[in-house]
Amino acid sequence: MSGPLHPADAASAALLTDLYELTMAAAYMADGNHGRATFELWVRDLGEHRNFLVAAGLDDALRYLEGLRFEGEALAYLRSLGRFSAEALEFLAGLRFTGEVWAMPEGTIAFAGEPLLRVTAPIIEAQLAETFLINTVGFHTLIASKAARVTLAAGEKDWVDFGARRAHGADAALGAARSAWLAGAAATSLVLAGHRFGIPVTGTMAHSYVLSHPSESEAFLAFARTFPEDAVLLIDTFDTVAGARVAVAAARELAAEGIRVAGVRLDSGDMAMLAREVRRILDEAGFPDIRILASGGLDEHSVAALAAAAPIDGFGVGTRLATGGDEPSLDAVYKLVQDASGPRMKTSTGKATLPGVKQVHRIEEHGKVFGDTIALADEAGVAGWPLLRQAMAGGRRLDPPEPLTAGRERCRAGLASLPEPLRSLEVKAEAPVRVSDELRALARRLGEAHPPAAELH
Amino acid sequence: MSGPLHPADAASAALLTDLYELTMAAAYMADGNHGRATFELWVRDLGEHRNFLVAAGLDDALRYLEGLRFEGEALAYLRSLGRFSAEALEFLAGLRFTGEVWAMPEGTIAFAGEPLLRVTAPIIEAQLAETFLINTVGFHTLIASKAARVTLAAGEKDWVDFGARRAHGADAALGAARSAWLAGAAATSLVLAGHRFGIPVTGTMAHSYVLSHPSESEAFLAFARTFPEDAVLLIDTFDTVAGARVAVAAARELAAEGIRVAGVRLDSGDMAMLAREVRRILDEAGFPDIRILASGGLDEHSVAALAAAAPIDGFGVGTRLATGGDEPSLDAVYKLVQDASGPRMKTSTGKATLPGVKQVHRIEEHGKVFGDTIALADEAGVAGWPLLRQAMAGGRRLDPPEPLTAGRERCRAGLASLPEPLRSLEVKAEAPVRVSDELRALARRLGEAHPPAAELH
Repeated sequence: MSGPLHPADAASAALLTDLYELTMAAAYMADGNHGRATFELWVRDLGEHRNFLVAAGLDDALRYLEGLRFEGEALAYLRSLGRFSAEALEFLAGLRFTGEVWAMPEGTIAFAGEPLLRVTAPIIEAQLAETFLINTVGFHTLIASKAARVTLAAGEKDWVDFGARRAHGADAALGAARSAWLAGAAATSLVLAGHRFGIPVTGTMAHSYVLSHPSESEAFLAFARTFPEDAVLLIDTFDTVAGARVAVAAARELAAEGIRVAGVRLDSGDMAMLAREVRRILDEAGFPDIRILASGGLDEHSVAALAAAAPIDGFGVGTRLATGGDEPSLDAVYKLVQDASGPRMKTSTGKATLPGVKQVHRIEEHGKVFGDTIALADEAGVAGWPLLRQAMAGGRRLDPPEPLTAGRERCRAGLASLPEPLRSLEVKAEAPVRVSDELRALARRLGEAHPPAAELH
Repeated sequence: MSGPLHPADAASAALLTDLYELTMAAAYMADGNHGRATFELWVRDLGEHRNFLVAAGLDDALRYLEGLRFEGEALAYLRSLGRFSAEALEFLAGLRFTGEVWAMPEGTIAFAGEPLLRVTAPIIEAQLAETFLINTVGFHTLIASKAARVTLAAGEKDWVDFGARRAHGADAALGAARSAWLAGAAATSLVLAGHRFGIPVTGTMAHSYVLSHPSESEAFLAFARTFPEDAVLLIDTFDTVAGARVAVAAARELAAEGIRVAGVRLDSGDMAMLAREVRRILDEAGFPDIRILASGGLDEHSVAALAAAAPIDGFGVGTRLATGGDEPSLDAVYKLVQDASGPRMKTSTGKATLPGVKQVHRIEEHGKVFGDTIALADEAGVAGWPLLRQAMAGGRRLDPPEPLTAGRERCRAGLASLPEPLRSLEVKAEAPVRVSDELRALARRLGEAHPPAAELH
């Protein structure tokens, strides 16, 4: 009953929230608390295999904030719960997002603890957006960060997103394809992502297509005759090496008709060994131009190993990309850092936060990231350029949505600027992030008011 | 640019497909292949920690098939790719799903290798649906199966879905809430899931709410006065034990006003130890009715441990439920098993399939699952009742969508019927599934035609 088959409207978006955002809104309202507050969204910890993030999801976040309103059906449902006073419902009916947003543009390389996005607004508006913002920025950033690792692994070789069938629903398939392309994929198999975002679409054939013909040979011939420019033949339905010989025979027959086979795809077995054998068969038959593509359970580690050791020209990465694979979630949080009374921090065990409205400054040396400083936004004299840019004022976007190609180029440049320890797919490097003295002093002052003061990160 | 903010329409659903489904359709069309074919959808392997599945996602799957059509924008986009002939595009414009579907009703307990859903239709229609069906049935079944494990872990205690912020986009948040409730959650925090599916919604307060008041005490009092029936106070913003004492003082003050505090929530630290200490504080203060709720990084294993050892009354399970946690995807496949020429099977190394149109039969003894038999659909004399029911004929549903409560009750009964080894959250039990002699003989005959014949599963 979810999914792209249901009219998605403002009512759906407004209710895409945890109930507590609404009960807190009602409580703030009852208290007459309409003071301005700032919330920041960051990822607390990247897990043991990640050294960096690629910020993504900002476009969806801004779209949500611009469109936020409680109307008709949504209000009627909230009324039906019997929890909200008439005044609270009336207040929600009139609510619009009127605040400002600062954020890292999509494709920016970021590290743990750095605010990716910051919202300043009357506290009810800022609080209400929590669930949606964590959901959207967290998911897109998760997949873009994973995709960037695959891009690093593939090096000079191409890789494409094959994740649609294993993503968590239709929306996730679309979002994953978008984030994958943002972070370096050459194409996607998902047609809707091509339509919506202009991403190149690609594809080969399924085992069922081979099985539905009297023989592998007839399947290959029929497919290539329908797509004479770019047919990629799936050769592992029965036996990969035998399938390569069948592909060669078909390619010879097709060549006589002026049809060119573009590639073959391996989808099972020992890929490195099979790729070498298939390459030998293709080369000996006089088809050095037929490319070898590999797919099937790949992730950044297997892509790196195969890219280094096997004559594979391109990779299809699906499940482990579109679900996040070994890390299916980010530890993303959205926390109050300042309100009308000043900077705020929480000191819960292991979950302490840094207080105050912040900016992140980056320094590069010789084209490589040297280090970031998390500082107070109004702190003077911090070296480096600011990563958070203002995206919204008075509830409106300052600029039209940027083309996805801009984020893609930003990510490409960002990955090129990552120095060696941070590029590693295996070794956990120390994040090149420091907290400014002024911010650290503020945290210490506030922490002393609430022992046990917790670690600062 | 994805998500619930975009008008979701038939064009989006039709393009929610891998490109190769469309190129194969074009190739079948060019060949004049409109023969009927049967595809089955199953999960190959459950991974090392899973013993069963809970089938889910059927309603979305049927809705998609009923609505499948290529129109306006979608056709224009496909035309723009320059890959499809005018005839192919014309064919797609007229295409509707006209086939039949058999499936396990939502909430049915299933095992690896068992078809959850079977489609019989002209081969182009059946093939085209692959990406969407694997995506939807796979995702919903993944989360329902995970949720069922949490339900087993919680035993007599309640648990609720807190996963919205960590699910993979808006659609996934909604789907996860639905699947969680299907498989035994008592409620969800996601308001949209309450609205769409009638699931009870629940929630407490965030740390930001506490931080935005001059003191924890003032936050608790303000919140409870706004929600005098069911306030749950979050007590770990600074220090959980101190927070419990503040909650007790607030509860005393509120009691004098006729307001009752319903519960307290712990969200960090050593939950078992803290719950015992908090319970003691509440009891000694004369509040034995204030419930203790726990949340924060929980999964079925920690819920089981806490349910057994700590005075916790309810659990909020978020990230590790809504993302699948340790298993963020199912190894779900959708394979051709029969076409106009008869039964089909693939013999790829490690990925071999069972041929022919199948049915699954279940036997129970003394109210417990004894075993399932996967047999050919037209096989006579197989013991047990059939799990796959016809859901669609001639492209139309046979019955109106069943209420979600029916699936929830089916799942409840199914979990109660699971015998001990299969209920284990830790120990991998052997799946109680056999393949009928007739089906095994057919697979052997077909496998001999394509050595190396692969294992049968």
